Amino acid sequence: MTQSSEQVADVYPTRTGGEFLLMPREDFVVHGTADDGPLDGEELEDFTQNGYLTFPEFFTPTEVTALGDELERMATDPEILAQDSTIVDQASHEVRTIFGVHRTSEVFHAVAHDPRLVDRARQILGTDVYIHQSGANTKPGLTGDDVYWHSDFETWHAEDGMPRMRAVSFTIALSDFHSFNSPLMIMPGSHTTYVSCGDIVPTQQEKALLDMHGSGTPSPAALEQLADRHGIEVLEGGPGSAVLFDSNSMHGSGGNISPYPSSTLYFVYNSVENEPVEPYSGQARRPEFLGARDFTPVP
Amino acid sequence: MTQSSEQVADVYPTRTGGEFLLMPREDFVVHGTADDGPLDGEELEDFTQNGYLTFPEFFTPTEVTALGDELERMATDPEILAQDSTIVDQASHEVRTIFGVHRTSEVFHAVAHDPRLVDRARQILGTDVYIHQSGANTKPGLTGDDVYWHSDFETWHAEDGMPRMRAVSFTIALSDFHSFNSPLMIMPGSHTTYVSCGDIVPTQQEKALLDMHGSGTPSPAALEQLADRHGIEVLEGGPGSAVLFDSNSMHGSGGNISPYPSSTLYFVYNSVENEPVEPYSGQARRPEFLGARDFTPVP
Repeated sequence: MTQSSEQVADVYPTRTGGEFLLMPREDFVVHGTADDGPLDGEELEDFTQNGYLTFPEFFTPTEVTALGDELERMATDPEILAQDSTIVDQASHEVRTIFGVHRTSEVFHAVAHDPRLVDRARQILGTDVYIHQSGANTKPGLTGDDVYWHSDFETWHAEDGMPRMRAVSFTIALSDFHSFNSPLMIMPGSHTTYVSCGDIVPTQQEKALLDMHGSGTPSPAALEQLADRHGIEVLEGGPGSAVLFDSNSMHGSGGNISPYPSSTLYFVYNSVENEPVEPYSGQARRPEFLGARDFTPVP
Repeated sequence: MTQSSEQVADVYPTRTGGEFLLMPREDFVVHGTADDGPLDGEELEDFTQNGYLTFPEFFTPTEVTALGDELERMATDPEILAQDSTIVDQASHEVRTIFGVHRTSEVFHAVAHDPRLVDRARQILGTDVYIHQSGANTKPGLTGDDVYWHSDFETWHAEDGMPRMRAVSFTIALSDFHSFNSPLMIMPGSHTTYVSCGDIVPTQQEKALLDMHGSGTPSPAALEQLADRHGIEVLEGGPGSAVLFDSNSMHGSGGNISPYPSSTLYFVYNSVENEPVEPYSGQARRPEFLGARDFTPVP
């Protein structure tokens, strides 16, 4: 399986005006071996099968406190608030997402370069890695806002020109995640199937979902098939817990009517052998804070 | 503690134009004893403490199949669809709720009169009971629609004139309820606190929630206090599982982005010594299918 950064045949077509299709993954999931460390053979096998791994106490309570403080500082910094890469909720005026935190915060830069994350990403991807995207998300309590099912890869392929599935994400919980306050939900094994997202919407339900969630929304039939085949795992965890998952995992998170807000850091590592080309959707490149064009490997 | 059906001093004021308040419950939770059966002493103690009990295999698979078939029949019966007591989703044209099923279906009439339900309701309420409300709910998958936190009693008191807390609800799952497809969530012990719902909304967040969910919506501060004090239980269960809960339990259910729809039957039993008077909110009585005025005891 060779990979080229030239834009030739697209093995993962999507948003082509065609129908919604399920297609097999054409890429390896794990490129390294247990000998490379730090993940052992069982963890690598789990990741191959399920497309994700969880780490209950990945960061210490002291570290988590420092990370939470830094996020709070950024969320009230007028300079950060003024940037396009900061998403503020219109109604509450609260910060929801700050993108590119590894470039705008020394504290988060250090996390992005922490060997606990980088070494695992390198081992799975089998090469040096660079950071394609990073962010800090805060979800309020008492609201029903959800993050609908999606594969990150579909977006990065269509909108950022990422050629192949050779990227992983690390999320780090900065708060408790119970089943009732919007934990990450994932369909284990779904990373082995590519859901090509069509533009033809034969049903009212599909149209309503596309209107609500935009391009790159999997069809109801695709989600039903994947959920029946793989099930749904609800990834509860405490502050400092982490999830490492494949770029093509089907994931989302439900709304949160509990009074407990939640916050998460995430870092996306892409293989240096998988540098993005032009977006496969034909649209213009997204800003650097959504799809990096600085491919400098993490040292 | 005597109870009068005359509209005298209102011990549970709400929607009075005042502030949101937490007030102590002024009514017993359990009126019967273990000697009355069928609930044993431990179950009665649990109900007293937590305000609810769960019964994992309350109805048999065969019974559940028959109940599901009946619901499906009703949901496609033009006569049922034409009634005010049937709520149809505007977008999908699917039936969401059929109220008053114990009066419009022989099958559901039999469930409402089943000794497994009625004997437990009588034991807890300590008297004969009549049916204040019943319904069948169907929640679709792939949508984020939630049912926000509320106490049923607050609504029944304000809108139906139910004087005191002396009613219980039985819900019966007709499908699997996982944490990800909108199971009932309850704050155990919350039934001991009455949340008086104000109309004064000092914060933007309160205003947004009231606009979204309407009168009888507890304030964020009330929900935070109750959740911190009592926690949140997520009541997963299989088809045929049942939950029996006090009328003043703070409960709700989150949105369901999973592809799995869910359906539930519910029956509300009120003590014959707690007959509703005129609505405490001062508004007109609601229709019979929402707040019964036929107080005939279940035989």
